[in-house]
Amino acid sequence: MRRVALVAAGMSDFGNRPTMTPASLFREAWDRMAASIDKPAWDGRVDEAWIGTVGFGGHQPGNSAALFLQATPSLGAPAQRVENACASSGFAIRDAALAVQSGACDVALAAGVESMNPYSRDHRGYWLGVSGDTEVERMAGLTFPGVYALMARAHMDAYGTTGEHLAAVSVKNHRNGARNPHAQFRKEITTAKALSSPLVADPLRLFDCCGTTDGAACLLLVAEERVGAFTDRPVWLTGVGAATDTLALHDRRSLTAVEATVRAARAAYETAGRTAADVDLAEVHDCFTIAELVAVEDLGFFPKGKGGPAAAEGLLDHGGDVVVNPSGGLKAKGHPLGATGAGQAVEVFHQLRGTADDRQVEGARVALTHNVGGSGATCAVHLWEAEP
Amino acid sequence: MRRVALVAAGMSDFGNRPTMTPASLFREAWDRMAASIDKPAWDGRVDEAWIGTVGFGGHQPGNSAALFLQATPSLGAPAQRVENACASSGFAIRDAALAVQSGACDVALAAGVESMNPYSRDHRGYWLGVSGDTEVERMAGLTFPGVYALMARAHMDAYGTTGEHLAAVSVKNHRNGARNPHAQFRKEITTAKALSSPLVADPLRLFDCCGTTDGAACLLLVAEERVGAFTDRPVWLTGVGAATDTLALHDRRSLTAVEATVRAARAAYETAGRTAADVDLAEVHDCFTIAELVAVEDLGFFPKGKGGPAAAEGLLDHGGDVVVNPSGGLKAKGHPLGATGAGQAVEVFHQLRGTADDRQVEGARVALTHNVGGSGATCAVHLWEAEP
Repeated sequence: MRRVALVAAGMSDFGNRPTMTPASLFREAWDRMAASIDKPAWDGRVDEAWIGTVGFGGHQPGNSAALFLQATPSLGAPAQRVENACASSGFAIRDAALAVQSGACDVALAAGVESMNPYSRDHRGYWLGVSGDTEVERMAGLTFPGVYALMARAHMDAYGTTGEHLAAVSVKNHRNGARNPHAQFRKEITTAKALSSPLVADPLRLFDCCGTTDGAACLLLVAEERVGAFTDRPVWLTGVGAATDTLALHDRRSLTAVEATVRAARAAYETAGRTAADVDLAEVHDCFTIAELVAVEDLGFFPKGKGGPAAAEGLLDHGGDVVVNPSGGLKAKGHPLGATGAGQAVEVFHQLRGTADDRQVEGARVALTHNVGGSGATCAVHLWEAEP
Repeated sequence: MRRVALVAAGMSDFGNRPTMTPASLFREAWDRMAASIDKPAWDGRVDEAWIGTVGFGGHQPGNSAALFLQATPSLGAPAQRVENACASSGFAIRDAALAVQSGACDVALAAGVESMNPYSRDHRGYWLGVSGDTEVERMAGLTFPGVYALMARAHMDAYGTTGEHLAAVSVKNHRNGARNPHAQFRKEITTAKALSSPLVADPLRLFDCCGTTDGAACLLLVAEERVGAFTDRPVWLTGVGAATDTLALHDRRSLTAVEATVRAARAAYETAGRTAADVDLAEVHDCFTIAELVAVEDLGFFPKGKGGPAAAEGLLDHGGDVVVNPSGGLKAKGHPLGATGAGQAVEVFHQLRGTADDRQVEGARVALTHNVGGSGATCAVHLWEAEP
């Protein structure tokens, strides 16, 4: 099996960008990806493309992969849309990596796009809900804040997790996001502000929830034989793992763990020959603050139930055991659904090359990305390592 | 690169099935796939799944791959939804094959599902249109019958193709479909009936257009090392090819050829070491009769402009140069968008194993499947061969 390297990565500005079409968001990310190539001889051609998008809000909800490539020199290359809710581009990375490993493809694009704000506000709730279970949850009015509130309450009951623990995640991620020039929210917040913000779904408050974001991200994954044509400092994709689970919470064995994360992480660690202890930084799927606490447990960074105290003690921050969401995470960097997984890898690209400026994690060598669809029905985990 | 074999295949009945949910259609196809395994020791587990669906009409429009697996013993396996309009499951086959070739996966599911009839008839036109170009075509009122009518008119002007040529496709495919127990339309028609049917979009008449179909199809693709556990008569996937093109017709160089088909076919022939002359039967994407005529030219079976005469002379029929759409094709077997590509492979599975009953193509050894998204913005072509 051939090794796969990330040799270029770029993201659009994430934020409220109602004048941008999905194709123009994609193009912004593509151009920044192209600009990140160290050896500028690339002709702009990819052998194949996988593009994650949930697709609502776009004016081209069907067959959009071809449209995205159309605005690039790669017009005509095989391309497909991957849709696994908020894990769409995490699975696009997976497909692109497997294709390169198979030998069918030397230069692959993995990307994600989402245009959420232009869409009619009247319909936004419907569309956001479609990635949750329909029969039991959505039709009963249980949208995602409610789903994650149930998980938060169960975690509090089982492990004594508190609102302060949740707020610690929010404060950290906003602090990190304030140092990310492409983040949606670039203001630090205080614990007091987080704890006094309006309740959205008890116990989750406004600052426990990510925003509504437009954005795109593009990654160039290439076979090891081709790396030298692009860069002398690639980021190696060393671990791949994915899993699914039931859509509805009520079908799950536990509300306090996400089994798809556990299984995807196990596969990623195994393929990389790594353990959680090796990971220097992780971009995890913090669509709600509770999701970050559950994730750092399920990924093996802390024992079950210890995520909250770890956050409160600063162990997820710079200088801690593992730096979680140095980009600002979904919470502050933003969460353009289909673009989130690829956006996580853009941060890893900079961190492992030492080009993350004010956000740089010192001595970063091994990074993990964790991308979840729905409340854990789909999950993709990847491990990335700096050139030795 | 490991060889990949199709060892099991099943499809639901295609048709107007408004009481079936997408998950129940999927389950019907899954059960028939499982029943097609010669050595019944399979535990029902796949390593990973790729499931094509355009997704309208379903009650789970987002994150649906996990839902489909949930009803099977493969609950929890990595799974993703692939969406490339009507080529969705053609690309699911591609992903599954590349994953098996990569070594990441030994037993892969490639599937497709579509539930079109339960959806509100008021919205059907909108949803069908979303896979065509939005900015120029859809917003101007140009739906797919109009798009293909433009292609038909251009082909008529350039090559003298006639309504009788189109009708020959329809009569043949209805005759084949009448012999397919899972087809939507199982009645033969006459040339006179086709030619006197109502105009839908000049020059296309009612019998030039496929129907609106609910259905699902499931395929089990496995690595060569694992074939013996399933069957002694596998069907080998020997050629893979895919391409994209502009979404809108007005951006294309030609209205009388589909470049994505030409390029996808070239790649498929090259990987298989085959030429068009080697192909005994082809399941091609005849969403409209003109599409079959253009396809048999673009796939290299006949010179450009000669598709119409070939159809009229019976060269696409049993006993002809290449038997095209022995299943009845999209025209008579039905066209459940996301399930169509996988459904084509179900027919090939039976044809190459000699189990196609009344539809059997004599001496079938090499088969081709051709799956198109939109009017040719996406295309996947595969070559399949019988066990020597």
